[in-house]
Amino acid sequence: MTLDELTTPALLVESAAFEANLAAMAKALPGERLRPHVKAHKCTALARRQAALGHRGFTCATVREMEGLAAAGLGQDLLLANEVLDARRLGALDARVTVAVDSPETVAAAADGGVGEVLVDVNVGLPRCGCPPAEAGRIADLARRRGLEVRGVMGYEGHLQMLDDRGRREEATAESMALLVAAHADVGGEVISAGGTGTYDCNRVATEIQAGSYALMDTAYAKLGLPFRPALSVLSTVISVSEGYAVADCGLKALGMDHGNPTVEGAKVWFCSDEHLTFQPEARLAPGARIRVWPAHVDPTVAYHEAMHLVAGDEVLERWPVDLRGW
Amino acid sequence: MTLDELTTPALLVESAAFEANLAAMAKALPGERLRPHVKAHKCTALARRQAALGHRGFTCATVREMEGLAAAGLGQDLLLANEVLDARRLGALDARVTVAVDSPETVAAAADGGVGEVLVDVNVGLPRCGCPPAEAGRIADLARRRGLEVRGVMGYEGHLQMLDDRGRREEATAESMALLVAAHADVGGEVISAGGTGTYDCNRVATEIQAGSYALMDTAYAKLGLPFRPALSVLSTVISVSEGYAVADCGLKALGMDHGNPTVEGAKVWFCSDEHLTFQPEARLAPGARIRVWPAHVDPTVAYHEAMHLVAGDEVLERWPVDLRGW
Repeated sequence: MTLDELTTPALLVESAAFEANLAAMAKALPGERLRPHVKAHKCTALARRQAALGHRGFTCATVREMEGLAAAGLGQDLLLANEVLDARRLGALDARVTVAVDSPETVAAAADGGVGEVLVDVNVGLPRCGCPPAEAGRIADLARRRGLEVRGVMGYEGHLQMLDDRGRREEATAESMALLVAAHADVGGEVISAGGTGTYDCNRVATEIQAGSYALMDTAYAKLGLPFRPALSVLSTVISVSEGYAVADCGLKALGMDHGNPTVEGAKVWFCSDEHLTFQPEARLAPGARIRVWPAHVDPTVAYHEAMHLVAGDEVLERWPVDLRGW
Repeated sequence: MTLDELTTPALLVESAAFEANLAAMAKALPGERLRPHVKAHKCTALARRQAALGHRGFTCATVREMEGLAAAGLGQDLLLANEVLDARRLGALDARVTVAVDSPETVAAAADGGVGEVLVDVNVGLPRCGCPPAEAGRIADLARRRGLEVRGVMGYEGHLQMLDDRGRREEATAESMALLVAAHADVGGEVISAGGTGTYDCNRVATEIQAGSYALMDTAYAKLGLPFRPALSVLSTVISVSEGYAVADCGLKALGMDHGNPTVEGAKVWFCSDEHLTFQPEARLAPGARIRVWPAHVDPTVAYHEAMHLVAGDEVLERWPVDLRGW
């Protein structure tokens, strides 16, 4: 199958960039040093590639992602790096399941739902989930009293992922991780789970890094100068051409927009509508021409699509269902 | 079924507001005066409600929407108000199909694809699809030479929908529609299709209005003082509570973000992450509490969800699959 046979908009994964990204990460963080985050791609076919390189534990953000990986036979060691108040679907999985807890309520939910193992989620500076570092030991004690195995701690330094000065990113990550180390001393266990694509090689504390974006990348992460290349674009058809601009069929429902407009090579993007991208190309295009649109944020882009296509040049090598969408 | 049995995040449609919106529009624009745009809800169950009120023609933005309506038996008069370069899937539908054309290429695609009827899409000021008004007659002639039935013109004054001064909105709509009237004189046919929720009662020229957002509304349209109320929210669970803020499970993959952050009553929204909403509630909430999140833009919000739920108070009356997603 070739690119021109695809219905647009269509998610493309450039094979060369993708394979290079996976290889670079597997070299930097081999085996269990990386616990790939599947939220970035929501795709068991892609997760299988990561597992084949030795990363057999996965990080998830939703119960649906956990269920999908378990059903795909990738349930050797699944971490839901997020809080849930109803863990019954997790308890029912045929997989090794660990869930993050940060409150008496989430500890109770894990125990009541039949989950066996937890990590205590610690706030390391991002105002999101996680208990204060000083309370981590208390949460761990509570979990143990409820019969849960406490494997250790997690803490996501998400507020530091996009710091573009590498020195500052390293320094801030060290400060953030000092909080996690202190909490870990109170909690115990073997696991210190943290990190992301932006801090994958700055974080000296984590026993495992939860990076996900490195596989596909996006234009926001690309600014950091990491050894990973953007691999994910949206193939789009030019459907209308006017004096000074053109319109392609790739709009708000094919692109995560929270990081702003996508990028089109050799063109200036004007704006997106529901199903349209209005842009100003350097050279006049004809209706029917196909362009590649590079999203600013991969994760919410992927979540709009039913499938992604691994491609090399004009050839479509594989079609991968985006099978971990929803909740 | 009651709300507390729903897995969150879950799309809710408030029955009272929804029914009032549909009734108000059916009174203002009865029967074929409204050609509801399904892009706003992507849901055949909702479209069926619109058809039951007398609106039996529909507007679509994608081929998939056309296919879904036809398969649901709602294909009495379907307009794809968008350009396509491959119309074969449209030509294969068991439905009355009209497609917008604005170039020789899109005319050829319609004819080659087996579509019988077209509207000439005219640029009325929004830099998107549509030919210049002066070229509309030429496109119509071309279409007729290719054996296509030219039903008339369409032109979307999308750039005027959010003008918050009603007088200015009326005036600008009249100016914009003067372009469409001039084009119509060259094109002929019975149909002048235009308008949206923001101009549904300002547009004196259109024989049919393509409004869609009126059914569910959103916080952006709500600022215009129209007689339609926000009916669509996302039910979300508080999963973590910290000093000064809380986190709910409704993030970038459950919300269209191009119009900015959603709204939470009695709270200040700080930011959204992939699966999280960090917000500052006026009163302390406990983990497990449920909140309603009101999206700034309905259309790309709906496109992330598998279903919406018609609710009255705590009761879930109906579950409607969002079955027109994708392309």
